[in-house]
Amino acid sequence: MRVRPWILSSFSILSSSCSRGVTIETYAQSLLDQIKERDGVVKARAYLDPEFVLEQARALDQVPHNERGPLHGIAIGIKDIMNTKDMPTQFGSPIYTGHQSRFDSSAVAILRHAGALMFGKATTTEFTVTNSGPNTTNTHDPNRTPGGSSCGSAAAVADFQVTLSVGAQTGGSVIRPASYTGVFAYKPTYNVVLLEGQETFAPTFDTFGFFARSIDDLQLLADVFAIKDDHPPKDIQSGDVSVALIHTPMWAQAGPSTVAAMEKAATILQNWGAHVEEVAFPAELSDADALRRIQKVITSFEAQKSFLREHRVDKERLTPEICGMVENAANYTNKEVAEASDTYARMRHVMNDLAKEYSVILTPSAVDEAPLGLGDMGSATFNTPWTGLPMPVINIPAFIGAHGMPVGVSLVAPQFHGQHLLRISKVLGGVLIAEGGWRI
Amino acid sequence: MRVRPWILSSFSILSSSCSRGVTIETYAQSLLDQIKERDGVVKARAYLDPEFVLEQARALDQVPHNERGPLHGIAIGIKDIMNTKDMPTQFGSPIYTGHQSRFDSSAVAILRHAGALMFGKATTTEFTVTNSGPNTTNTHDPNRTPGGSSCGSAAAVADFQVTLSVGAQTGGSVIRPASYTGVFAYKPTYNVVLLEGQETFAPTFDTFGFFARSIDDLQLLADVFAIKDDHPPKDIQSGDVSVALIHTPMWAQAGPSTVAAMEKAATILQNWGAHVEEVAFPAELSDADALRRIQKVITSFEAQKSFLREHRVDKERLTPEICGMVENAANYTNKEVAEASDTYARMRHVMNDLAKEYSVILTPSAVDEAPLGLGDMGSATFNTPWTGLPMPVINIPAFIGAHGMPVGVSLVAPQFHGQHLLRISKVLGGVLIAEGGWRI
Repeated sequence: MRVRPWILSSFSILSSSCSRGVTIETYAQSLLDQIKERDGVVKARAYLDPEFVLEQARALDQVPHNERGPLHGIAIGIKDIMNTKDMPTQFGSPIYTGHQSRFDSSAVAILRHAGALMFGKATTTEFTVTNSGPNTTNTHDPNRTPGGSSCGSAAAVADFQVTLSVGAQTGGSVIRPASYTGVFAYKPTYNVVLLEGQETFAPTFDTFGFFARSIDDLQLLADVFAIKDDHPPKDIQSGDVSVALIHTPMWAQAGPSTVAAMEKAATILQNWGAHVEEVAFPAELSDADALRRIQKVITSFEAQKSFLREHRVDKERLTPEICGMVENAANYTNKEVAEASDTYARMRHVMNDLAKEYSVILTPSAVDEAPLGLGDMGSATFNTPWTGLPMPVINIPAFIGAHGMPVGVSLVAPQFHGQHLLRISKVLGGVLIAEGGWRI
Repeated sequence: MRVRPWILSSFSILSSSCSRGVTIETYAQSLLDQIKERDGVVKARAYLDPEFVLEQARALDQVPHNERGPLHGIAIGIKDIMNTKDMPTQFGSPIYTGHQSRFDSSAVAILRHAGALMFGKATTTEFTVTNSGPNTTNTHDPNRTPGGSSCGSAAAVADFQVTLSVGAQTGGSVIRPASYTGVFAYKPTYNVVLLEGQETFAPTFDTFGFFARSIDDLQLLADVFAIKDDHPPKDIQSGDVSVALIHTPMWAQAGPSTVAAMEKAATILQNWGAHVEEVAFPAELSDADALRRIQKVITSFEAQKSFLREHRVDKERLTPEICGMVENAANYTNKEVAEASDTYARMRHVMNDLAKEYSVILTPSAVDEAPLGLGDMGSATFNTPWTGLPMPVINIPAFIGAHGMPVGVSLVAPQFHGQHLLRISKVLGGVLIAEGGWRI
């Protein structure tokens, strides 16, 4: 019988490798077996050297228990936009085929120091910008996209190929693929995890994020990255929980599965004893087109700078979409960029004040189930406001859509309330998943 | 007689190497001679391989004239916080002794593509954070500091060891050393030059910058980095120029040489025909202590993230000052960070509106002449507001202080008016330098 430690959470692996004699090598081998069996369909890998993984695993097995870090031996997939000293980093771009830095990104170094087992690189769309590209498929239906841009990171966790993975979100590149593939994901408050050593798209929005199959595993990563609130999070009692149900100005775009998921989530939480209250976006932010525009203006402006180097050095191999951004084909003005930044600054203040009046915000994670086909990775419209605001978000993979695919909902807290968000997501996530129907 | 192309500006070198038969190798050799003669005193080098420089120079000499970029053959010093594929990058830290990436930072790649001759790495304080460290001295008095953190970049240009150099500013790390060493420097609007591939200190403030011995040379670099205004800058006529004389809330800290320089600058410009008007900081920003505090709060908070990796992996070799930041020894709260960001956002709006009412702002570049000794690199108090706001600034090295050292003044424009700032600095800088007394 095949050994199945690949289905375990980090906690189980950590305790198994401590007490029950399951070696990290055995666990790593079981993941490699799973990948061998599955990756022909899922294609979540930008790079993997099985021999090197096993070598690392054996070395980790030799580390005395009292010298082990909080992620000792846990297999983690790294989005292929983060430099890794011992694996290529190719940014999903032909320009960087075979590119390998000699140094880890800041986040990778921190993960490695915590004992993580680096389990290859996960696919990304070209520079995280394009909305198609790698042929990575959705674990739950190979005819559907896993979402982007962190497609490989989400797919690999959903397919039990790794226990954890890391990615990044500029629009909806973490939360949306988590919703599409039915896993948990955490986008922390902007700027609380350093992006040094990884690709830049739009520095005003670029945010680190991570994927797991449980809130406990998200918690592990949050602690490794030293995410801290001003006050330790309080215990959650159902009678004290108030939920701001925010459909956002983009609600008209929601598909039937997202509409159903949001309704069901509100009902479940109400029945559980939470106070659920529909809350509108503040008036200044209630125009969906205007909201989308300010995101686009800033992103596109910053992309002009972020890809100037590739445009200068290797333009023929840069996708026309990015060339258009560098050349400012849309003719955005600096004036509009400055105004958009000012609007975001006001929004941030207003929305955080509003969020503080509730225990948590409940809002969509994606427009609908994962779209059919691999040519369109879906819309980030429900994610961009929270990326820009810049509040912490967790995807709860609780529901099943009209075609049997997972549909997540987002829980959102005020900025710098990331530990509180984990605590309340653990409780509310449990309630939603118990009744929502999706099983990881 | 020794050939002296090392004293030339980029423009002269570009035209010499095109038309007058001075090879890039000859020019490079003359700089190496200058360095050999001077660097025992100035110590501006974190790394230099003369043979490799000459090799590059000879290769550049072979490039046909019609294939040459805008910086072809111009010697440029790179602050030792920017990755260079062919030289070590050591961040002024013992942790990174011998550290070498296989890839250039974005800015270095753009400079290289433009034909620049990479002329070694220039010293920096430890991770640009500390206010002492390298034993780099001031060209004009080896008993005085050149200022930090871009000490080597400023000193090397001032000492004619390179024609151009690049650095970065989080508080006052470009403008202040330029003032101390008597060279021009340009800190563009925040985020218009990408920082990918270089060290992060405080992402909210970190800004690229560059040094030169003329405005024309700053202009060259600004164009290489594609700095653009919404409208092409207008010609400058003395009768139309209005100057906002802003002493800032920190004016009480100004030493006698800065007080004299500001007075002299105002008089010179007035006599030239400009309308010079004393303008106060907006009321909300008029408390010097509060202004300093918001800068400190954000910088220190972001340093917690920026140096978490080194703190985890190699704490014993991290200076206690940075350890204290990572450990949040000052007990700053997230709440205070959020409030500081909101204040900055309001300030940015108010100050840019105010700046738009004038042709340019005139404000101090430094507290006084460069301080005596190498243990204190001086105060950035006059620079931090403009770094955070985040407006473009040019140092004009026009004046001579009480001890014969250079004293600069800053010209400041609204954000995204970087080309306008170059144009007006060319005119006003010329006027100020003609009468100010300092000769580069």
